[in-house]
Amino acid sequence: VRALVFDGQSLALAERPAPELPPGHARLRPSCAGICNTDLEIINGYLGFTGILGHEVVGVVDEGPPRWRGKRVVAEINFACGRCAFCQRGLARHCPTRTVMGIVGQDGAFAEQVVVPVANLHEVPDEIDDEQAVFTEPLAAAFEILEQIDLSPRSEALVLGDGKLGLLVAQVLALAGANVLLVGKHPAHLELARARGIGAVELDRWDRAPRDLVVDATGSAHGFNLALRATRPRGQLVLKSTVAERTPADLAHLVVQEITVVGSRCGPFAPAIAALRRGTVETRAMIHGRFALSDGVAAFARAREPGALKVLLRI
Amino acid sequence: VRALVFDGQSLALAERPAPELPPGHARLRPSCAGICNTDLEIINGYLGFTGILGHEVVGVVDEGPPRWRGKRVVAEINFACGRCAFCQRGLARHCPTRTVMGIVGQDGAFAEQVVVPVANLHEVPDEIDDEQAVFTEPLAAAFEILEQIDLSPRSEALVLGDGKLGLLVAQVLALAGANVLLVGKHPAHLELARARGIGAVELDRWDRAPRDLVVDATGSAHGFNLALRATRPRGQLVLKSTVAERTPADLAHLVVQEITVVGSRCGPFAPAIAALRRGTVETRAMIHGRFALSDGVAAFARAREPGALKVLLRI
Repeated sequence: VRALVFDGQSLALAERPAPELPPGHARLRPSCAGICNTDLEIINGYLGFTGILGHEVVGVVDEGPPRWRGKRVVAEINFACGRCAFCQRGLARHCPTRTVMGIVGQDGAFAEQVVVPVANLHEVPDEIDDEQAVFTEPLAAAFEILEQIDLSPRSEALVLGDGKLGLLVAQVLALAGANVLLVGKHPAHLELARARGIGAVELDRWDRAPRDLVVDATGSAHGFNLALRATRPRGQLVLKSTVAERTPADLAHLVVQEITVVGSRCGPFAPAIAALRRGTVETRAMIHGRFALSDGVAAFARAREPGALKVLLRI
Repeated sequence: VRALVFDGQSLALAERPAPELPPGHARLRPSCAGICNTDLEIINGYLGFTGILGHEVVGVVDEGPPRWRGKRVVAEINFACGRCAFCQRGLARHCPTRTVMGIVGQDGAFAEQVVVPVANLHEVPDEIDDEQAVFTEPLAAAFEILEQIDLSPRSEALVLGDGKLGLLVAQVLALAGANVLLVGKHPAHLELARARGIGAVELDRWDRAPRDLVVDATGSAHGFNLALRATRPRGQLVLKSTVAERTPADLAHLVVQEITVVGSRCGPFAPAIAALRRGTVETRAMIHGRFALSDGVAAFARAREPGALKVLLRI
């Protein structure tokens, strides 16, 4: 099968043997897949992953249990053991022996075929087209915040970073009733938020008034201290950026102001699918490119351009 | 009045004018005061404070409202405006215009007289002697953890650092029902914990198994990443160390493991006084020196010795 492979040095289209199908797994034929900032970090060599990239995917099951064959699905990315204490508490996303599709020890979905555990599959309702469905995984990561913190309609929330994740997070927090301000560097992205009725301001015009709830979606090491200073005493700072380098953090400020910092990664697919079905989260305007799998290297080049939002592979 | 003054360069006994007594304040004659690690940081020049040091104090009110005159009291250290949104929500400890006794913009208690707002006073019950009462402020900082997190009797807690605060935190968490392990470098300090029925192990013999709740009371910049690695996925890390320097923090680990970091500073006096009254927290064995105010410089030298626990000034 053709696949987009990172060998530790460079990214290239390659021919790979068809993946094996272990018991309890299904084989998908991806129809659409999204490039994420994590993919960009991988090809910069930060995460030590080699293999087929890709973890945001929608496709059709063509091999596996009869109940799933022919279904259009999205797939959760953490492949868990199903037996450990974390798995048994419903925290398979934290299974200590997990692999992660296209990120840790597991081939991903930028390929003509990908194999995933049946437990990870979610059927996609007909109302959601492929180019919406492919946002399920990053949108779930935005919904994860609602699983972790208590948001009240009186919450004054601030989202730092107007990239893909920041735009999704701002929308999810606004849906949940918070008064949201999005701060970023890209006027066109901020306009997307404003079109959804969300307050948005450029970084250099931002008043820097501290807020109750701050989400760092800057994806940068500098974001942390900026976000920390933007959080009220006793407030909550949700950290979404996974920055490989160590961040010189102003931890004394965190202690003195008694700020709570919440690390936040993958999230629940069900509310993401429900929001896409209801059309309450805008994703279409975030698509900044569509490429064939065979043009995958060009797709990554586009995704790396400053200001680029979601770049899709049509497979 | 005689006082122990830091002038930005050095610490010395000095003669100072008697402090003024504004409305709503009381003047205490301290009888006993404790030297805290924050005091040591101040004389290292880290906090930018100059003036009379001292924020752990017990004394008798000799001037102020009749209801308080002659009472033996301890005093909360944050002097708040009483009118702002934080003060009105009962979070006077986070009043943005607060001063802090002996730490920020306010003379402290290593002196023959100190002036504090009446709102900050707590009467000391007769069952608590001065050398116990002086632990109220640091013990309140340990109780602050219980105000911030949900501790269950099934909680597996880890306290990193067997200094003064670590020993108090370990005792408070154990009182609240947690299964506590204290990790430190001082066999004699660990023995104090074991004598209270608390598990304690030396750093180089510690198995480093991650736990649900970790408290960093190391007071060192290195403590943070060590504590982060010792926290289970989805676990909680309470940060008690205020380290002036910026800490190169492994924030990606925090995000991937979805760890919550809770900054924790000053706490409620009432549960601390209640615990001292009931004798459920051992403080006497933590006293490693008693000095007259006139020997304050020697007292600081003793407090700076490796392995020194609480050094008291008898005033």
